[in-house]
Amino acid sequence: MNAPALPSTHIPFYQPVADECAVFEQAWRQQLPILIKGPTGCGKTRFVSHMAAVLGLPLFTVSCHDDLSAADLVGRHLIADGDTRWCDGPLTRAVRSGGICYLDEVVEARKDTTVVLHPLTDDRRILPIERTGEELQAPPGFMLVVSYNPGYQHVLKTLKPSTRQRFVALSFDFPAPAVELAVIQQESGLDAPRAQQLVTLAGQLRRLGGYDLDEAVSTRLLVYCGKLMMSGMSPLTACRVALVEPLSDDPDTLAALQQVVLTQFGA
Amino acid sequence: MNAPALPSTHIPFYQPVADECAVFEQAWRQQLPILIKGPTGCGKTRFVSHMAAVLGLPLFTVSCHDDLSAADLVGRHLIADGDTRWCDGPLTRAVRSGGICYLDEVVEARKDTTVVLHPLTDDRRILPIERTGEELQAPPGFMLVVSYNPGYQHVLKTLKPSTRQRFVALSFDFPAPAVELAVIQQESGLDAPRAQQLVTLAGQLRRLGGYDLDEAVSTRLLVYCGKLMMSGMSPLTACRVALVEPLSDDPDTLAALQQVVLTQFGA
Amino acid sequence: MNAPALPSTHIPFYQPVADECAVFEQAWRQQLPILIKGPTGCGKTRFVSHMAAVLGLPLFTVSCHDDLSAADLVGRHLIADGDTRWCDGPLTRAVRSGGICYLDEVVEARKDTTVVLHPLTDDRRILPIERTGEELQAPPGFMLVVSYNPGYQHVLKTLKPSTRQRFVALSFDFPAPAVELAVIQQESGLDAPRAQQLVTLAGQLRRLGGYDLDEAVSTRLLVYCGKLMMSGMSPLTACRVALVEPLSDDPDTLAALQQVVLTQFGA
Amino acid sequence: MNAPALPSTHIPFYQPVADECAVFEQAWRQQLPILIKGPTGCGKTRFVSHMAAVLGLPLFTVSCHDDLSAADLVGRHLIADGDTRWCDGPLTRAVRSGGICYLDEVVEARKDTTVVLHPLTDDRRILPIERTGEELQAPPGFMLVVSYNPGYQHVLKTLKPSTRQRFVALSFDFPAPAVELAVIQQESGLDAPRAQQLVTLAGQLRRLGGYDLDEAVSTRLLVYCGKLMMSGMSPLTACRVALVEPLSDDPDTLAALQQVVLTQFGA
Amino acid sequence: MNAPALPSTHIPFYQPVADECAVFEQAWRQQLPILIKGPTGCGKTRFVSHMAAVLGLPLFTVSCHDDLSAADLVGRHLIADGDTRWCDGPLTRAVRSGGICYLDEVVEARKDTTVVLHPLTDDRRILPIERTGEELQAPPGFMLVVSYNPGYQHVLKTLKPSTRQRFVALSFDFPAPAVELAVIQQESGLDAPRAQQLVTLAGQLRRLGGYDLDEAVSTRLLVYCGKLMMSGMSPLTACRVALVEPLSDDPDTLAALQQVVLTQFGA
Amino acid sequence: MNAPALPSTHIPFYQPVADECAVFEQAWRQQLPILIKGPTGCGKTRFVSHMAAVLGLPLFTVSCHDDLSAADLVGRHLIADGDTRWCDGPLTRAVRSGGICYLDEVVEARKDTTVVLHPLTDDRRILPIERTGEELQAPPGFMLVVSYNPGYQHVLKTLKPSTRQRFVALSFDFPAPAVELAVIQQESGLDAPRAQQLVTLAGQLRRLGGYDLDEAVSTRLLVYCGKLMMSGMSPLTACRVALVEPLSDDPDTLAALQQVVLTQFGA
Repeated sequence: MNAPALPSTHIPFYQPVADECAVFEQAWRQQLPILIKGPTGCGKTRFVSHMAAVLGLPLFTVSCHDDLSAADLVGRHLIADGDTRWCDGPLTRAVRSGGICYLDEVVEARKDTTVVLHPLTDDRRILPIERTGEELQAPPGFMLVVSYNPGYQHVLKTLKPSTRQRFVALSFDFPAPAVELAVIQQESGLDAPRAQQLVTLAGQLRRLGGYDLDEAVSTRLLVYCGKLMMSGMSPLTACRVALVEPLSDDPDTLAALQQVVLTQFGA
Repeated sequence: MNAPALPSTHIPFYQPVADECAVFEQAWRQQLPILIKGPTGCGKTRFVSHMAAVLGLPLFTVSCHDDLSAADLVGRHLIADGDTRWCDGPLTRAVRSGGICYLDEVVEARKDTTVVLHPLTDDRRILPIERTGEELQAPPGFMLVVSYNPGYQHVLKTLKPSTRQRFVALSFDFPAPAVELAVIQQESGLDAPRAQQLVTLAGQLRRLGGYDLDEAVSTRLLVYCGKLMMSGMSPLTACRVALVEPLSDDPDTLAALQQVVLTQFGA
Repeated sequence: MNAPALPSTHIPFYQPVADECAVFEQAWRQQLPILIKGPTGCGKTRFVSHMAAVLGLPLFTVSCHDDLSAADLVGRHLIADGDTRWCDGPLTRAVRSGGICYLDEVVEARKDTTVVLHPLTDDRRILPIERTGEELQAPPGFMLVVSYNPGYQHVLKTLKPSTRQRFVALSFDFPAPAVELAVIQQESGLDAPRAQQLVTLAGQLRRLGGYDLDEAVSTRLLVYCGKLMMSGMSPLTACRVALVEPLSDDPDTLAALQQVVLTQFGA
Repeated sequence: MNAPALPSTHIPFYQPVADECAVFEQAWRQQLPILIKGPTGCGKTRFVSHMAAVLGLPLFTVSCHDDLSAADLVGRHLIADGDTRWCDGPLTRAVRSGGICYLDEVVEARKDTTVVLHPLTDDRRILPIERTGEELQAPPGFMLVVSYNPGYQHVLKTLKPSTRQRFVALSFDFPAPAVELAVIQQESGLDAPRAQQLVTLAGQLRRLGGYDLDEAVSTRLLVYCGKLMMSGMSPLTACRVALVEPLSDDPDTLAALQQVVLTQFGA
Repeated sequence: MNAPALPSTHIPFYQPVADECAVFEQAWRQQLPILIKGPTGCGKTRFVSHMAAVLGLPLFTVSCHDDLSAADLVGRHLIADGDTRWCDGPLTRAVRSGGICYLDEVVEARKDTTVVLHPLTDDRRILPIERTGEELQAPPGFMLVVSYNPGYQHVLKTLKPSTRQRFVALSFDFPAPAVELAVIQQESGLDAPRAQQLVTLAGQLRRLGGYDLDEAVSTRLLVYCGKLMMSGMSPLTACRVALVEPLSDDPDTLAALQQVVLTQFGA
Repeated sequence: MNAPALPSTHIPFYQPVADECAVFEQAWRQQLPILIKGPTGCGKTRFVSHMAAVLGLPLFTVSCHDDLSAADLVGRHLIADGDTRWCDGPLTRAVRSGGICYLDEVVEARKDTTVVLHPLTDDRRILPIERTGEELQAPPGFMLVVSYNPGYQHVLKTLKPSTRQRFVALSFDFPAPAVELAVIQQESGLDAPRAQQLVTLAGQLRRLGGYDLDEAVSTRLLVYCGKLMMSGMSPLTACRVALVEPLSDDPDTLAALQQVVLTQFGA
């Protein structure tokens, strides 16, 4: 769970794809929570960091998982020096400070987390903290943002409609080629021609059908690949260890991916 | 879990649909518990808030979930400053104060909660608190209200008949068009023509058959959409992020929903 | 779990159906435990309260559930004021006081409860309390009564034969019309003609075949309906919220039930 | 779990069926553990009590269940008066005192109990108590007796061969008619003719095929029936509540059983 | 779990079957761990005791089970007299003393035990004790021995290849007739002719095909049978209670086994 | 879990197979985490130890398992001498010291470990320690390395794409014959001809198709076999206990493996 990231004058680089920045800002102004849907490594976390900096809000990020409970979000009593003191969780810290609480991969969290999300996501906008007897009224600046990946959900892990229908929702996808090109250059320092080669290769890899691929290659891995090439690694090796091997364990799939790489960087 | 909401002179807006206010009041006068059935976001929580204010009763709301146990409702011993003190749960607070305890989505709660609900929902109307040795006799003002959504139940999550047959029951559905029109205008500030467009659109979306929709669009989302339009967002974008994307992750379903939106707000 | 209900001079109203009062008393005199089988809301709990009062015995009632363990019945050490003290559970209190311990829906309890029920239900009639080193010999007045509903059992929840064959058993069913008429009048204050209409309606509803009904309408719900009619609610509305809606969520079933109501109270 | 039953000069009544008393005694003399197999209520517990008294050994009986762990058998540290003291479990008490430890329905216990049973059931005959650092060498008098019911086992609950093949085994069944007659007379005080009628009836009920009966009627229930008849209950009623209703919830099965009763006690 | 068995001048009787003693000793000299596979009661535990005594090493035996965790092997902090002190588990005691740690039926243990077995079973030979901050380097004398029964494994319980391939492995089976004859005479004191009859009978019982037998009769049970015959029990009875009843609950299987006994000891 | 292995001047022997050392070093210089895939006993752990020594970095190795949680990696409060003190876990120690944290068989760990791995494996490179309120920025030297075996995964145990696509990945396989020859000689001291025989045998065993083998024979077992031959064991016996018996329990498979051994070392 993330400690607060205080608003800074530095705004993390984010290359907008469509109207997502405007929708985010208007939802925030109307005090509505947002749900972001999209594949792995397409920039959801970066987008939220960017918007928090643009709006001048502290950001509290939580990577959700099977064992994440309401207490992990709200806080708990800790024992220190023989004494008990209350320790706010990241959601409570976001409410108190009027910032953004971002629950990444929210469908992974334990179901008892909805007990604290529901009163914060209707017109009440309250966070009851039973253990301390407090009931916090979220200030206007507070915003709840959640995300998940619709292309890779467990059968048993979905948002209940009673939770889903409390959010304004945005769909993310891989960025358009021109946007992805800018991202790779900015993040890895690679020159335009080789970055373009990676973008073209990414398109080819993502269109590759009929193989055992849980998910297509992410922009993050393209950046990894660019960094390794910048550090002197040959393109073929960089593509193998950053774009091919991370995607699958199936020999046929790996061979097909590597074949696509060869058509782009071979000979 | 909700801290007590003390009765106030302010009565939350609620647009009655049929005889539900009268039934609620008579059940309360006869000291009978109530079960409310209905879809997501149709106004169950608002209705209970409204009735609590009308009857001048404190309201204690609990969003039930997988891990909610009897102790969460009744209370537990907490350790503070090296000392142990008893802390009433929301159900106990409702009984002591003669108010309403509202268990939202009660079928989600752990089964041991029935041990405290049963003696409160027959002619005994008692709440035994084993840990403190107390046995509270509910005052005449106390009322237990539970709700769940019959259209979205897990196979393993239902109320046992021995629990169900302890409640007077009310079915809620989406409000009639005239009622929903009034709600949207009141909550979002939208003018009548555009609010009417949203109501018409809602009817079309709810009648859309043959798609992968867990639940139809709620009045809450219509209010969200109205708010975003009031803040200057184009109707098409507002409908996409507030009425379409929150309903499904399936591309065909999303396309079909967006198509309906276009017939109402396009060109 | 119930705190002890001390014997009082007041004997709760119970309308006998057959020889159940005599069987109960003779089993008690022979120091044999009793198992009561029967549907929801047919009066099992009231019957046990009645017999406890008739025999002048304190009564300890426990609503069993998934998490009910042997320690919940026998007792446990509690920490209070930095000190540990033993706290008897309801079964131990019943044994010490020579009263009745009534385990309602016993099949729901955790399996480790049988460890304390077995030595109390054979000729030993002892309750060993391992944690305190005590072994209580049940006095002649002590009686164990358990109940469950054979019509609504989970596949995995039954009494093992080694437990079942330790009890004398009684089957309960809905009371005969004349008995049910008396109960409704007594409990709701309704006049005889309208109470008779409810009894007739109950018979019609219970004979309704071919629908998705977990269990037939209980006498308790008829009493609820009578109370609502006494408070001025129209018979049609009272039947809808007290007899129809609590029984099912299936629209066809609800329509069929409501149709039966109309033939009795319509026009 | 049973506190120790000290050897007494009183020997509980037990009617031997075959050579089981001799086998038990010789196994005890050879320091071999015994496994008793047999149906519910056929006298296994009584047999062990009888043999313990005959051999002048203290007896420690444990009814096994799903949650019974090794610590429940061996002992644990308890906190009392702010202090921790070790408290022997029934198995440890049996080893220390050179008595019999009887684990009833041993297949129900948690699997970690085998960790303490194995070194006690091979030639080592030791009980290591890890928590206290002790290792007890069982004295010659100590004997481990376990039982279960092969006719009513869960699929997942059996003794592993590595455990089973550590025991000498005895099969029990319902006693022969003459033996059962003696038992009923001795236990209930019923006269010979009526006791004989019950024995004849038991044989008829046990031969009844083709019905939903988990297990045949036990000798214990015949004794119950005799006691109720002795207290003045009519034979038909006594048979219904003691021999028919405890065996099944299925209406057809109950009717068939009652029909057999009528042929014996009717008219 | 076993307290340490200090090396003694007494060497437990073990009748070697093949080269198992030499393999064990060479594996120990090369500091390689050993895996012993074989059926119930064929002498695995005795073999390990024998080798520990021959090599002059202390032996720590642990019967593994479902709930056995890494902490049970390594140790834990215990609270005593208001103070916390570390208490070594049997594996740690074996490492510290340079002895043998024998995990019997290792596949039954919880998976987190592998975390402590892995670094002890490769060239590192270390035992990290996280809770105390220690990291023990196993002395040359330390040896890890594990065993399981390949003929009676649960589907879900096997050793992972990454664990298996860390051991030198030995397969045990029932001893050859001459060896088994010597074992029975030595352990039970039976004379040669009757011991020979038991060995012949064992061979016949083990060859019996087509019946519901989880596992064949063990040498241990033959020794039991010999002891009971030595104490004066008739061979037919001794075979019934020691060789037939412990093997099965199925009446047909029991009858077939008893028939084989009759051909050897009948008439 | 491993205590820190401080960098030493001694570099563990590792025979490179391809460009894995260069890829590892460049990933480390670019501050990218690495995922190593490969079969049991092929040298993954040795490779990581080697690289840590070459780069002069402390190494923290964790063997993952079912019960390994985020707290096991990050640290926890321990109570000692009545006082509570924080104790860093191996991941935290690796971050603080700028070393390598190696999670062996990472797919076995509990899912809540991803919560601490995610922020360390994107451009943030932070480790939030919620319990102490710290947020560590990983120094440039820190590297996360994880491994698993794609050929032996449980159905339910895979890395989620959102985790996988955060790593540069390397595939390991059994070493080429010349490399394996060098490893066996170095580790066991065996002479070249016999080591060559083992390498040839390994190839034959690994090509053996159609048998019940979870995984092929590892280089580790070849080293075991060489050590036993060095200590004087006959090649046939050494191969049986080190190469055949550890691979399978199936008699047909064992016979087929032994047959291959005979063709190499027989006669």
